[in-house]
Amino acid sequence: MTIRIGIMGYGNLGRGVECAIKQNPDMELAAVFTRRDPKNVRILTEGAKVYHADEAKHMTDKIDVLILCGGSATDLPVQTPEYAKYFTVVDSFDTHARIPEHFAAVDAAAKEAGNVAVISAGWDPGMFSLNRVYANAILPDGKDYTFWGKGVSQGHSDAIRRIDGVKDARQYTVPVESVLERIRNGETPELTTREKHTRECYVVAEEGADLARIEKEIVTMPNYFSDYDTTVHFISEEEMKRDHSTLPHGGFVIRNGKTGWNQENTHVIEYRLKLDSNPEFTSSVIVCCARAAFRMKQEGMSGCKTILDIPPAYLSAKSGEELRKNLL
Amino acid sequence: MTIRIGIMGYGNLGRGVECAIKQNPDMELAAVFTRRDPKNVRILTEGAKVYHADEAKHMTDKIDVLILCGGSATDLPVQTPEYAKYFTVVDSFDTHARIPEHFAAVDAAAKEAGNVAVISAGWDPGMFSLNRVYANAILPDGKDYTFWGKGVSQGHSDAIRRIDGVKDARQYTVPVESVLERIRNGETPELTTREKHTRECYVVAEEGADLARIEKEIVTMPNYFSDYDTTVHFISEEEMKRDHSTLPHGGFVIRNGKTGWNQENTHVIEYRLKLDSNPEFTSSVIVCCARAAFRMKQEGMSGCKTILDIPPAYLSAKSGEELRKNLL
Repeated sequence: MTIRIGIMGYGNLGRGVECAIKQNPDMELAAVFTRRDPKNVRILTEGAKVYHADEAKHMTDKIDVLILCGGSATDLPVQTPEYAKYFTVVDSFDTHARIPEHFAAVDAAAKEAGNVAVISAGWDPGMFSLNRVYANAILPDGKDYTFWGKGVSQGHSDAIRRIDGVKDARQYTVPVESVLERIRNGETPELTTREKHTRECYVVAEEGADLARIEKEIVTMPNYFSDYDTTVHFISEEEMKRDHSTLPHGGFVIRNGKTGWNQENTHVIEYRLKLDSNPEFTSSVIVCCARAAFRMKQEGMSGCKTILDIPPAYLSAKSGEELRKNLL
Repeated sequence: MTIRIGIMGYGNLGRGVECAIKQNPDMELAAVFTRRDPKNVRILTEGAKVYHADEAKHMTDKIDVLILCGGSATDLPVQTPEYAKYFTVVDSFDTHARIPEHFAAVDAAAKEAGNVAVISAGWDPGMFSLNRVYANAILPDGKDYTFWGKGVSQGHSDAIRRIDGVKDARQYTVPVESVLERIRNGETPELTTREKHTRECYVVAEEGADLARIEKEIVTMPNYFSDYDTTVHFISEEEMKRDHSTLPHGGFVIRNGKTGWNQENTHVIEYRLKLDSNPEFTSSVIVCCARAAFRMKQEGMSGCKTILDIPPAYLSAKSGEELRKNLL
C-alpha cells in the first residue's frame, strides 16, 4: 500500500520533501499546495498536481499524510493545529523555546479529530534531540554538548542583510575544533558561547558603502554576533554566487558520562552530521516521520507526537523481521 | 514508584547492572541470583541479598524486571524464554545471526505469559543497530559501515588462550583510521575484511614455549585471524596485568547517502562510542531498557521487543514534558 503524501508550501523544504518521496517506493506525491497562484508553481514530479492551499481541506480522501513545509515563526503555529483537524500531519517546527506551547495546541486539535500529528521533525530539533535523549538515559551521570556547523545559519545571514549598505550576506557557524577534541577525549569543560563556536560572514556591500561601519555593525550586533568571535569577509557578487550558493550544515552531539561503582570509567557518545544540504536532510527526516505517522494513525493512535515518541522501526520501510535479521 | 530489579548472573555484566542501578534513582536492586553458592557471592549494594538462581521463580511479587546477565552461547537461549514466563525480562543476546530464532522463542513465551521481554540490549546489537536503522530510514540511497574498536574482543582473546603454550592473551580490534577518514569525507568504498580492521594480540607464553609456532598459529587461525593483518606481541605477566586489565571498546557506525532530484547532495551520519568499560556501558543500556520494559508491561503490552520497538522517551526517567522542554 502506497502512502499518499501532500506537501503544503513549496520552498526549499517542500522541494526537499518532493525529492525524498522519489527515494521511497512506498510513498507517492499526491499533491502540492501553495498560497501562490498554482499556475506559477512548477514542480519536479511528473503527473503530480499543484493546487491552491485553500483546496487542501476538500482533498482529505486523496491524502494520507500532509507535510507542512512552512516557517516556524508565523506559518506553523497556525497551520499545524489547523490542518491536524483534517489530516495526519508532520511539521518541522524548530523554535525550541516554543515547542511546549506548539505541542499543546497541536495535541488538542489532533486528539479532537482522531489524527496523529508529528511535530519538530528534522535534525535539531529531531535527530540531535534523539541523541541527547538516548545518551542522557544511558549515562545519567554526565554532560551534554551540542555544536552546530560548519554550516549556513539563515537567521544570521538575514540579520546581516538588514544592515544598511549590505546587498547580500551568508553567515557560517563554525564549531571550535580544539574544544571538540577535548570533549572527545572525555573532558567535561564548562564553556562560554564564545568558546564553542565562531561566526564567519561573507558580505556583498553596495557600491561605495562604508565597509568599516558595516563590519562594526555586524560584530557588535547583540544576540546574533556580540558574544562570538566573528570574522567579516567582503566579497563580490560573483564570488557569493560561485562559492556560497549551497546550504551545507551539520554538527555534533556529544555526551561524556561516568559509570562504575565509584564513577571510575568514562564513556564518550558522539553523533555527527555532515550535510551538503540542510533542507534536503531535514526533508528526509520529515518523510520517514510521515511513514511513522501513517502507521500510528492506522493503529488507532491520535494526538501530537515527536520523534521521541516514535518506535524507531516505524520510521523504516522494512519489516520488523527484516530489521532484526539485517540491521539489529 | 521505584522499579525493583533482579539480576540473574553476577559476572562483569551483572556487576555493571548493579552499578547502573545505583545511578538511576527510580530503580532499586531487589535481588541478585546466582548458580554458585550464594554465601560465596559478595555484591556491592548494601542491603540487597543474593539468592540461588532456583529461588527466582518464587519471587515474582518482589521483582518488576529481571535482567538476565548470562552468556549468549548457552545461557540466554534457555534462560530468556524460561524466565519470560514469570517476569518482565531484559537480556543482551548478541549472537547476531541467531537473533531471529531467539526472538521467536522469547516472543512465544512472553506472549503466552503476558510479559514483556526486551532482547539484545547493549551497543551492538543495541545502539549501533538503532543508528543503522535511523540512518537507513533517513537516507535510503546510501551505504553503511560499522567499525569496532579500538577494543578488547573476548572471543578472540579466548581463541588465543586455547593455543598450546599460551598462558594468557588479550586481543584488540582496531579500525583502520585512513579508511574511516575516506568514509567521513563522503566516499563509499567497497572494503574487504582486511581493509577495515587490524588485530593486535598481547600474549603471555609459558616458559620455554615456541614463540614462532604460537605466532604462526594465531595469524593463520581461520575465522578469527587469517583474514586480518594481525600483530602479535609477547609480554610478561606483569605487563599483562599492568597494561591490559581493563575492557575498553567502542566503534563507529557511519552511513553516507545521497539526496536531491539527481542525487546531487551527499550526507554523512556518524555515531561513535568510546568506552572505558564495555560491560558497564552495555549494562547502562540494559538498565534503561529495563525501565522501558516496565512501562510497556504497565501499558498492557506483551511479547518480545528490541530497542528498535521502544519509543525513545520510554528509556528516560524524565517525563515527556520535561524531555520536550529541555532535550528536544
